[in-house]
Amino acid sequence: MADSPNCDLKSLSPLQLFERVTEQGEKVRALKAGKAPKDEIDAAVRMLLSLKLSYKTTTGQDYQAGLPPRDLVLINNGTTKEEDEDFVDPWTVQTSNAKGVDYDKLIVRFGSSKIDTDLINRIERAIGQKPHRFLRRGIFFSHRDMDQILDAYENKKSFYLYTGRGPSSQAMHVGHLIPFIFTKWLQEVFDVPLVIQLTDDEKYLWKDLTTESAYEYARENAKDIIACGFDINKTFIFSDLDYLGTSTGFYKNIVKVQKHVTFNQVKGIFGFTDSDCIGKISFPAIQAAPSFSSSFPQIFNDKENIQCLIPCAIDQDPYFRMTRDVAPRIGQPKPALLHSVFFPALQGAQTKMSASDPNSSIFLTDTPKQIKTKINKHAFSGGRDTIEEHRKYGGNCDVDVSFMYLTFFLEDDDRLEQLKQAYTSGELLTGELKKVLIETLQPLIAAHQERRKQVTDEMVKQFMTPRKLAFEF
Amino acid sequence: MADSPNCDLKSLSPLQLFERVTEQGEKVRALKAGKAPKDEIDAAVRMLLSLKLSYKTTTGQDYQAGLPPRDLVLINNGTTKEEDEDFVDPWTVQTSNAKGVDYDKLIVRFGSSKIDTDLINRIERAIGQKPHRFLRRGIFFSHRDMDQILDAYENKKSFYLYTGRGPSSQAMHVGHLIPFIFTKWLQEVFDVPLVIQLTDDEKYLWKDLTTESAYEYARENAKDIIACGFDINKTFIFSDLDYLGTSTGFYKNIVKVQKHVTFNQVKGIFGFTDSDCIGKISFPAIQAAPSFSSSFPQIFNDKENIQCLIPCAIDQDPYFRMTRDVAPRIGQPKPALLHSVFFPALQGAQTKMSASDPNSSIFLTDTPKQIKTKINKHAFSGGRDTIEEHRKYGGNCDVDVSFMYLTFFLEDDDRLEQLKQAYTSGELLTGELKKVLIETLQPLIAAHQERRKQVTDEMVKQFMTPRKLAFEF
Repeated sequence: MADSPNCDLKSLSPLQLFERVTEQGEKVRALKAGKAPKDEIDAAVRMLLSLKLSYKTTTGQDYQAGLPPRDLVLINNGTTKEEDEDFVDPWTVQTSNAKGVDYDKLIVRFGSSKIDTDLINRIERAIGQKPHRFLRRGIFFSHRDMDQILDAYENKKSFYLYTGRGPSSQAMHVGHLIPFIFTKWLQEVFDVPLVIQLTDDEKYLWKDLTTESAYEYARENAKDIIACGFDINKTFIFSDLDYLGTSTGFYKNIVKVQKHVTFNQVKGIFGFTDSDCIGKISFPAIQAAPSFSSSFPQIFNDKENIQCLIPCAIDQDPYFRMTRDVAPRIGQPKPALLHSVFFPALQGAQTKMSASDPNSSIFLTDTPKQIKTKINKHAFSGGRDTIEEHRKYGGNCDVDVSFMYLTFFLEDDDRLEQLKQAYTSGELLTGELKKVLIETLQPLIAAHQERRKQVTDEMVKQFMTPRKLAFEF
Repeated sequence: MADSPNCDLKSLSPLQLFERVTEQGEKVRALKAGKAPKDEIDAAVRMLLSLKLSYKTTTGQDYQAGLPPRDLVLINNGTTKEEDEDFVDPWTVQTSNAKGVDYDKLIVRFGSSKIDTDLINRIERAIGQKPHRFLRRGIFFSHRDMDQILDAYENKKSFYLYTGRGPSSQAMHVGHLIPFIFTKWLQEVFDVPLVIQLTDDEKYLWKDLTTESAYEYARENAKDIIACGFDINKTFIFSDLDYLGTSTGFYKNIVKVQKHVTFNQVKGIFGFTDSDCIGKISFPAIQAAPSFSSSFPQIFNDKENIQCLIPCAIDQDPYFRMTRDVAPRIGQPKPALLHSVFFPALQGAQTKMSASDPNSSIFLTDTPKQIKTKINKHAFSGGRDTIEEHRKYGGNCDVDVSFMYLTFFLEDDDRLEQLKQAYTSGELLTGELKKVLIETLQPLIAAHQERRKQVTDEMVKQFMTPRKLAFEF
């Protein structure tokens, strides 16, 4: 049976299929580890892909290691209701569209609001500066209550920023920088305190890690975050495993959220099952609690009413929908949100990047040569198959990953527009577009590496020490 | 329908019945609060009792506010398998036997071991003192791994004691003292550190309380605990809401336990449902974590291998069965346990006492007169209906609450035996037995009140400050 995976897979339940994929994955790893002959490994990999496809056809979800299938509503013919819909939650982002997730539909499904020209203009007036390219280009595209933040700001009422990261491995990729680049800009233009949560407890709960290595990842990731240029007098970075035991306010807010959210609710929001550990089930409260200023008594002087603004990728929204639902019931203001699109993998916009696949992205540790090779070899092209066809019909910027990356990292709007027109008209070839990207990313990453080298253990310790920041509350 | 509760109750599901009882309870409270006519209140109370009876008949469980019915295995005739069995978990103790719970059966069901004469003799040899009356009289009747504690003790290896309390109201009753009286004795004879957990977070999660008042109860209860005479240099008392935010080790152990226990497991052990909040679902890990010495780095110098001994009432065993199951998987020693019987309510041994019913017990705040009145008026008697019958047939010590209380509080074994024989033979009348109990409890409680008066806020603060104790590790 193991050699003909499709013969009776239709009769298997989603959970049985999940177990088959997991087994086959282990087999592939064992073959690779044992340096088995290449054709044997290839056959096992083909089988694995075939099993994953069956899993996806049956459940409507991509296989995720360690995450058994959810109780999806299966229609009689075995397909799921959401077959043609994008699927987005904190662990899975899935779309069948090469342009990526349909973000307008996501706004409607999530019930958030579009960041439209009016809002961008209002931000520009409020801060007296040109809005960040991530706003100008719709990379931060959705929000909740940003107008309230601006109302308060215009009335000289302060707020604070909260963002975070799940530290799963030592190397971060450029996509991980998006929320931090944007948060740094927000901090500068609004001049407000910032808290950055490193959810090392989450990573301990979800992955095969010790608490010690999860905490070590958090400290390593903190260095890359600090290298983005945050102001040490205005920024507090914390590991959950560490800060929970040193804050008089954090746990109290966690337990308040935990009292007001049922298992039924987290099952609905996050797809937890009865087989999940109680740590995962209660974790959403730990990501929720930093939305309340009383979690940081050392910064906010125990004040409970300071408004919070959370810049994050849209897949984190489920946590904060839950938080906003609970907030008024525990007498706290709802956090406002700014949502970004996902950063595409080099191979295309169908998936989020994975820190575990070195070729899926540009890492912050990559050398100039690695950057060049990866982009030339792996960046999905929207160009035509031959130079002649390309000159005649032009390239497609909507699916071209090099162009997408440039929208994230090339500051000059005019240059970007020129590149778009030249590529679309066929004047600019794929190799030339890739060269622009390589020349944009190489100095950017080299500069990041330079700044990171200057981040000392002492600086990490300072950033991660609970303390008063340069603001009065 | 509301006026004839029994007409169609048989067709209701346990959950529907639960909701009917809850509604009726709210109606009774509203009538009382609105000072409705007495007969109207009485009628509503009768209906409430009738609904509760139907609930119990259908589910085999007593109604517990806020605790919806569990998925009991219902047999075809609608009675439960456990109909004739005692029911014991941290929230419900139920027996139909006037002598109280059948503890021998409980030992078999829970898989613990009986504290037999051999073990009591071994303890006597190890400490070189007469064992406490709670051991001599089978009040602490069951254990897990107490022999390992004695092995270690005889080999000069230290251990520590852990006990606790859920602070639900400001007044504690004499039954609440049992684990503390015994723990104090254990601390003295073995000369070991002691940690006492006040689960104010649990009370916040389960009751209609703010975190502030739960913490205030914890502090008030700490005074009564301190008044038992614990050594300030050897004892650390902590509130979860407070200590979790000041300990570098406690949360790490909590999240380790939470990773290794699934919702399915806590559902099976504690009867949680999908409608329970995620705080309740993850709470068992918080009661588990103090079983591991690394939760108290300030006391144990970060040592992880110090054995723990937990004296507690047997209803707390489910928490520690779970803890013992997890311990080896997170590289920690299993805690040992000593289990006590339940302290009976004045009205009889069928139930545990309730801090919310002032007549169900003797409170530590009662005056000598209140003690006398309560015992004379409410203590269930095993005596006969008339003096003549009593003289002829004698009283029944097995169900007589005054005699039971004396087994807890009268130190003199010979005197207790004399009272038993005189009561059983009919020589001693109920009133005379009650007089002995009154004269035993009055000075005991007066002395407790005197010691409690001397407990200052400063002392409470000291006991509750994380610090090194008078031991080297």
